[in-house]
Amino acid sequence: MENKREGGLVYELKVEPLRQDQFLGFGSVIETEGRSHTQINDGRAKRFDALADVQVLDRQGHPAVSVFEASPITLPFHVRTLERHPLGSQTFIPLSRAPFLVVVSDAKDEIPASSVRAFLTNGEQGVHYNPGVWHHSLLVLGERQKFVVIDRVGPGDNCDEAVLDAPLAISSV
Amino acid sequence: MENKREGGLVYELKVEPLRQDQFLGFGSVIETEGRSHTQINDGRAKRFDALADVQVLDRQGHPAVSVFEASPITLPFHVRTLERHPLGSQTFIPLSRAPFLVVVSDAKDEIPASSVRAFLTNGEQGVHYNPGVWHHSLLVLGERQKFVVIDRVGPGDNCDEAVLDAPLAISSV
Repeated sequence: MENKREGGLVYELKVEPLRQDQFLGFGSVIETEGRSHTQINDGRAKRFDALADVQVLDRQGHPAVSVFEASPITLPFHVRTLERHPLGSQTFIPLSRAPFLVVVSDAKDEIPASSVRAFLTNGEQGVHYNPGVWHHSLLVLGERQKFVVIDRVGPGDNCDEAVLDAPLAISSV
Repeated sequence: MENKREGGLVYELKVEPLRQDQFLGFGSVIETEGRSHTQINDGRAKRFDALADVQVLDRQGHPAVSVFEASPITLPFHVRTLERHPLGSQTFIPLSRAPFLVVVSDAKDEIPASSVRAFLTNGEQGVHYNPGVWHHSLLVLGERQKFVVIDRVGPGDNCDEAVLDAPLAISSV
């Protein structure tokens, strides 16, 4: 993953531009750029259809639309924990045009540092995490940012958290 | 509904500001203003939870996240048809801060002119139509506008269309 040890203490996490072909193992990128569409409403609108399928895996939960408002982080930032939602997917779409960081791992349970990847959105992209995909909570840069969030609500424990063996640093984007 | 006959031909549809208390019979307003939230992500984010529940009423369909891009209408605009989706809810959240028009009716099947209402969003609000609620397709003013859309995808006929007995005019907002 080209993570480099810095000063013998913290691995540096390389930040990649977010691209659908790099993200397939984690979920989907929500974007219209380069995607096909159909004409609807008598030609007055384009539908970029089903950029992500909302998944709720149990019968006690159901999908809902929420809004998150996240405070910005400052760099360097140390990634110390990741979370996952075993019972459903989670989709984040920014309501302002500003890039944000997406940190994920395709590990099953234990999370090797080498499995952690960091992506920067282009300011218009959203992300959809498949159920059970390890990811960091919202990492917003610069200013507070609102997101539309589509995920499972309902009873039961739908959030696992894992602490990394050693923090991973993001020093610049 | 204070719709006024204009020139003996077309009823004028009064445009009201969109407010949750006026919209309960049709669905929900997606907004954070005046709504409660919880702190999440160790206090770094606010969650305005479940502003709308996504509903898919049949087993063949499932919810998905799409993006619509709508061309603007010009005023005066004549409302001639409404549509409804019997098998699922439909949520629209604008990705740019611009008001749009929301036209709905709580009629069952036949749509009396007096049942049709028009609302103008405040530029940040989204709307959620409950399954089966008559509504007009996207009515965007001024510039092209993108929306996140959460609705049912899948086989089967999930769109009824009704033609009004007489058009209803929206002359100004």
